[in-house]
Amino acid sequence: MKVVNIIEKTIPFGTKIANAYVNFSAMTGSVVAIVTDVIKNGKPVVGYGFNSIGRYAPTSILRDRMIPKLMNNDDIYTEDKSNLDPFKIYNILKSNEKPGGHGDRAHAVGAIDMAVWDTVAKIEEKPLYKLLAERYNNDNYDKDIYTYAAGGYYYPDKGIEKLKEELKSYLDMGFRDVKMKIGGADLKTDLKRIEAALSVLDNDGSRLMVDVNGRFDLIQALECGIAIKDYNLKWYEEPLDPLDFSSHAALAEYYTKPLATGENLFSFEDIRNLIRHAGLRSDRDFIQMDCPLSYGLCEYMKVLKFVKDSGWSTRRMIPHGGHQFCLHIAAGLNLGGNECYPGVFQPFGGFADSEPVRDSRVKLPDAPGIGFELKANLWDVMKNIV
Amino acid sequence: MKVVNIIEKTIPFGTKIANAYVNFSAMTGSVVAIVTDVIKNGKPVVGYGFNSIGRYAPTSILRDRMIPKLMNNDDIYTEDKSNLDPFKIYNILKSNEKPGGHGDRAHAVGAIDMAVWDTVAKIEEKPLYKLLAERYNNDNYDKDIYTYAAGGYYYPDKGIEKLKEELKSYLDMGFRDVKMKIGGADLKTDLKRIEAALSVLDNDGSRLMVDVNGRFDLIQALECGIAIKDYNLKWYEEPLDPLDFSSHAALAEYYTKPLATGENLFSFEDIRNLIRHAGLRSDRDFIQMDCPLSYGLCEYMKVLKFVKDSGWSTRRMIPHGGHQFCLHIAAGLNLGGNECYPGVFQPFGGFADSEPVRDSRVKLPDAPGIGFELKANLWDVMKNIV
Repeated sequence: MKVVNIIEKTIPFGTKIANAYVNFSAMTGSVVAIVTDVIKNGKPVVGYGFNSIGRYAPTSILRDRMIPKLMNNDDIYTEDKSNLDPFKIYNILKSNEKPGGHGDRAHAVGAIDMAVWDTVAKIEEKPLYKLLAERYNNDNYDKDIYTYAAGGYYYPDKGIEKLKEELKSYLDMGFRDVKMKIGGADLKTDLKRIEAALSVLDNDGSRLMVDVNGRFDLIQALECGIAIKDYNLKWYEEPLDPLDFSSHAALAEYYTKPLATGENLFSFEDIRNLIRHAGLRSDRDFIQMDCPLSYGLCEYMKVLKFVKDSGWSTRRMIPHGGHQFCLHIAAGLNLGGNECYPGVFQPFGGFADSEPVRDSRVKLPDAPGIGFELKANLWDVMKNIV
Repeated sequence: MKVVNIIEKTIPFGTKIANAYVNFSAMTGSVVAIVTDVIKNGKPVVGYGFNSIGRYAPTSILRDRMIPKLMNNDDIYTEDKSNLDPFKIYNILKSNEKPGGHGDRAHAVGAIDMAVWDTVAKIEEKPLYKLLAERYNNDNYDKDIYTYAAGGYYYPDKGIEKLKEELKSYLDMGFRDVKMKIGGADLKTDLKRIEAALSVLDNDGSRLMVDVNGRFDLIQALECGIAIKDYNLKWYEEPLDPLDFSSHAALAEYYTKPLATGENLFSFEDIRNLIRHAGLRSDRDFIQMDCPLSYGLCEYMKVLKFVKDSGWSTRRMIPHGGHQFCLHIAAGLNLGGNECYPGVFQPFGGFADSEPVRDSRVKLPDAPGIGFELKANLWDVMKNIV
């Protein structure tokens, strides 16, 4: 086989929402398409990827620095030249890159990695989760995956009633559990918002997560933690700057209920520091590393190995991002679930149109690859790139 | 005053050298020019910057994401509108940017920050080091600055004799102390190279640094550390991955001589983790954070405050990068010195042509701003951008 072309296109998101830290109206993403000369069903196989959700398109890193490393490179294939080799490609993309500085570069590599895995599974004519289970998980995969609705943003002029309406709409879509943003208002206001949210969840704290998006310092994180402790929430997410491991460890001594973090750490080395220094507890906390923001699945497998070697179950890994790629990884490598953003971050957020969420669980379709073709609004964007 | 234009131009480096981790032949840098309507000596003031040395040009991050935040923005000036306000600009550039992920984005902000400080000092008609000393250091500055020649790369087919010639040439240029790369060959070969280097330095280990560029794991770092301990080198640099703080702390218990690291940590939060977790000792070790790779001088001042609050002297800060900007910072804020790369990373590396190095110390000229105009090969590039 041969890779004929690799294309990057920068796409605006334009979502008019904000969390405690940023608003998303100027955000962009990079879509990558790998065009091959392998013919399936009368057409060349094309694999697609994007750099997850919530950062910016790494346009020139892809176009000028990463894609040229792969073009006309004979070392990106399996030995029998029948498919791409994701690990060879990962090593090539990380060559001539210094250690440290895991940011936009990691998103660029992750976007290519997603397109590589889509290509590989399409050439094998299998859904990605089955390919992952066969190759790396003794053929074990989950038939449905836990998911939850991440919402409760600070829209302009959004009051308590509108928050309740929004969360109710997620329950109507089939979600049992929902997540809301906090930390963008004072604690008193946020507690009212949390209690309003709980009122639509039968006052069952195990169905609600709260997300600070890294905004608090230690004092604020402790104040909030003490105030919300008795709600018995499913988790208290990213209370502190993602790199402030010492403060996180101090918080964990006071906030003995579940914590979740890791979506803004983009490398194996950063997650290793999280596990080493942040006081996380393997029996209750969650790690939310976003694989296509973090050099992709080859790097994520290194993380999963370290996590297991450190005494954690893969069930405590629930990736950030709410897209189809990590849903396959969750199913094929037995993670704890996958985020979902109903209605926002379109067209990248969400899963196949054919698979409704039921009681906060979702299935994967049997289409080959990642199945972007079964998500109409995303496919509308992707199919026009090649 | 008004900013009329901000221009980015991507420049190839094309240096045919390698360290233990990367070769630099494909490396690029971004030059930024801020064009103002302030007239000095009959011409508009233009401030210049670049994203230091050793990573890649953050082209689209500058063009599509950072520079547009400043264009036609009235909030980038001092209250009396007589000059740019670097801290306002820093806050604007960091707005709508999520926490974590301090990589290429940090280099982009740093390149703009350098151009901002050049502009500010040119408008005040002062060399930058004097402006920094006046504003932030009770008018104390150093009249000359410690520097050392960073070289000893692994050129293709370069033997021991060529290494000795290279290091001798640095002594002829006025350097007393020199740094060489190790970790790109086996330990036995590197020990021979180190002993050859020492032979041209009167066997005085205090004149030699060795730099691993983050390549070793803990076992290799310990093996090498034990082997080189009795040379009493000035420092043993970046033996481990820059984010492997635990291993660094373990190494520091065995290698009780000076260590140096930090050039591949690009934010306040990362350096804070270095100080918290890496076992560094404030009486002997060195922190080499590279300010224009790391969101610039405004971020670096936060780092200097944390460093001092943690019991360190600013004299233990010796920036990576070997360029004029950090030389001003070293002089104006009383750092321990500044790296120099004689002959490589041109035209960005090196200082004003008018200021020779004498006994490993160098002076700054009295030109306004950073003084790029006094480094002919760099000025040849910069003057053609606007």
